Amino acid sequence: MSEQVAVAKAQVVELADRFARKGWLPATSGNLSVRVSGTTDFCVTRSGADKQRLATADVLWLDASGQPREATAYRPSAETVVHQRLYAALDCGAIVHVHTVFNNLASELWFQRGGVDLAEHELLKALGHWREGARIRVPIVENYADLDRLAEAVCSAVTDGCPAVLVRNHGIYAWGADGMAAVRHLEAFEFLFEYRCRLAQFRGEFCG
Amino acid sequence: MSEQVAVAKAQVVELADRFARKGWLPATSGNLSVRVSGTTDFCVTRSGADKQRLATADVLWLDASGQPREATAYRPSAETVVHQRLYAALDCGAIVHVHTVFNNLASELWFQRGGVDLAEHELLKALGHWREGARIRVPIVENYADLDRLAEAVCSAVTDGCPAVLVRNHGIYAWGADGMAAVRHLEAFEFLFEYRCRLAQFRGEFCG
Amino acid sequence: MSEQVAVAKAQVVELADRFARKGWLPATSGNLSVRVSGTTDFCVTRSGADKQRLATADVLWLDASGQPREATAYRPSAETVVHQRLYAALDCGAIVHVHTVFNNLASELWFQRGGVDLAEHELLKALGHWREGARIRVPIVENYADLDRLAEAVCSAVTDGCPAVLVRNHGIYAWGADGMAAVRHLEAFEFLFEYRCRLAQFRGEFCG
Amino acid sequence: MSEQVAVAKAQVVELADRFARKGWLPATSGNLSVRVSGTTDFCVTRSGADKQRLATADVLWLDASGQPREATAYRPSAETVVHQRLYAALDCGAIVHVHTVFNNLASELWFQRGGVDLAEHELLKALGHWREGARIRVPIVENYADLDRLAEAVCSAVTDGCPAVLVRNHGIYAWGADGMAAVRHLEAFEFLFEYRCRLAQFRGEFCG
Repeated sequence: MSEQVAVAKAQVVELADRFARKGWLPATSGNLSVRVSGTTDFCVTRSGADKQRLATADVLWLDASGQPREATAYRPSAETVVHQRLYAALDCGAIVHVHTVFNNLASELWFQRGGVDLAEHELLKALGHWREGARIRVPIVENYADLDRLAEAVCSAVTDGCPAVLVRNHGIYAWGADGMAAVRHLEAFEFLFEYRCRLAQFRGEFCG
Repeated sequence: MSEQVAVAKAQVVELADRFARKGWLPATSGNLSVRVSGTTDFCVTRSGADKQRLATADVLWLDASGQPREATAYRPSAETVVHQRLYAALDCGAIVHVHTVFNNLASELWFQRGGVDLAEHELLKALGHWREGARIRVPIVENYADLDRLAEAVCSAVTDGCPAVLVRNHGIYAWGADGMAAVRHLEAFEFLFEYRCRLAQFRGEFCG
Repeated sequence: MSEQVAVAKAQVVELADRFARKGWLPATSGNLSVRVSGTTDFCVTRSGADKQRLATADVLWLDASGQPREATAYRPSAETVVHQRLYAALDCGAIVHVHTVFNNLASELWFQRGGVDLAEHELLKALGHWREGARIRVPIVENYADLDRLAEAVCSAVTDGCPAVLVRNHGIYAWGADGMAAVRHLEAFEFLFEYRCRLAQFRGEFCG
Repeated sequence: MSEQVAVAKAQVVELADRFARKGWLPATSGNLSVRVSGTTDFCVTRSGADKQRLATADVLWLDASGQPREATAYRPSAETVVHQRLYAALDCGAIVHVHTVFNNLASELWFQRGGVDLAEHELLKALGHWREGARIRVPIVENYADLDRLAEAVCSAVTDGCPAVLVRNHGIYAWGADGMAAVRHLEAFEFLFEYRCRLAQFRGEFCG
């Protein structure tokens, strides 16, 4: 196993620690991956692992088609196909998928509109939007049980300028050029979803 | 004390640490048990222990009828009878009982309907439901002060496909094949209760 | 300084650590005291200390009239008079005073009724009420800037069976036979205040 | 680098640790500064640093005009100009700027009124207001993308007796005579914003 693979695995464990402490990886849910530097390979969490105490052995090294690059007793996360398709489609170095109450609320409350509109907020800068009056729409796709179909839906929904897609009543896929960029994007989205949901509640937007 | 008993006690302490960090065991409330591998015995938290700093000595080894298997100065949790009856009725390896604001809200808001309906949500997979359109109902029983009657009510309410019962204005009993399965189920239920309650609030379901 | 004084001071530090981790002692607010075993003396936090990193030196040994029993550069908490009066009136071993958003909301929302009614809830057992259908009222008093007057109001409001008094837009005083009993009571009250407030919100009790 | 500079840098790291643990510095947002004792220099976080794991090397030593006082590969935070202008205008020793969901909600909900009114609450004492019936207004300014204009707006909005200004849909600038005073002020404001927002919600103040 090369040095770069070890680095990528260590970064996946670090992401898991960070998000687990925030309560974003409940009930063994979620999956996290980091691309192996200079290659099309990536390292991803195994299926069923408790992300609240993830070990390096719980992170699997795969090639661009999602096949294991080393012997292991574990299966990769069932949603690996979504990571694989996103890496093929996007120029990104890390993909994170987490379930939070507020990203789920946003995915349901704004599903009919097709996306969550986020506008004129400071944290849009963390997503790369520095202009006054900036606005983005985070797309929301249906939660297909067929994971190939889900991967297809997520990839088709990707838009320029928004490094994330929401899956209805499921969670968020967010990405970045590297692990820290993915963290920055995810933390900004989670802040904005909670803010947007609570503001909607203050205004009674969905009440009656 | 056999090796298996020591393992079961250590698992109870680990469950307590995990849930205490989430704030799910306030005011010495809650009780946790793990079955001793290969036997009908189980280990359960003692009455009145502070679960936010539980020690192995706070975990008692009991037989299937709830009688102590070793000398101790402590009494088992008053609700041990519920654990004992659930172990007798179910093929499970761990039972957890915790009090959270959202499981209490769910137990009160949907009491008249007899249960909390959870549908078409990704985290139902953590409860073993992988089909698209899956739905379950978590039963809610009255909070009888008579603990034999409570145990009877909880056991009678158990349904296939839902590893938990809510007690009104009290908390949840959840279980699994082993400690980690019970953790996974409980974390999924707590996420879903908070999500379901907040969604109801957005929609003003109980307002006026 | 006797052994008992050292024990009481260590318990105050432990209470501070525990409540600080929960976010219950913001902005140097709150004060905590433990009676010195076998005496009428008590140990209380000094004025202005950051309870999120309290040291033994921040805890002062006082006699029953609130006078220092040893030389110190510090003044006791301004609200020491409330502790002193409560120790004189009650047979208790520890008093805790904390500010949380939900105890403040409860203190304001139910001020006109004179108290927060808590009924038929499992956590009333942590307050010593084991009967089915148990109910208690937590009294609420006005937040007088004159601390002698506040102490008088708090002591006058104390009722049998409820080890706490709320001060409007301020916080809670809770107590117990010893430090752990005070912790148990406080954690039960905080759970119940959040539960009661959220339930009122679901039902729109104060809306319009 | 003098001893005083090292002290100021260490205090910035300590502030970052403290606020990061509360979740107040998401997505590399926020910036924190401490004045170098006995000088007009100050130390401030660099641009883009992850405040959830800040190192001393991420803190830059600047003179009163915002120019670096030592060689570094890093740029100071883009919002350093706001800190610089506040130090020039005020007699303070530390400035903290954080983004929370509730300070953002307050900044939006009360923007049209020009400020958030906080009245008759115990935690106003942590802001230096000890009188019964005390009230303050926290000013809210527009979130200009032009940072010189933002700095101008923040400084113009400062009022006696209120050590903070809110920026709409952005966050809070708060300050104090030293790091601990800034912490005390910020924690009091955050408590009061959450309290005030939730109270408004109970009363349906912004609903319909």
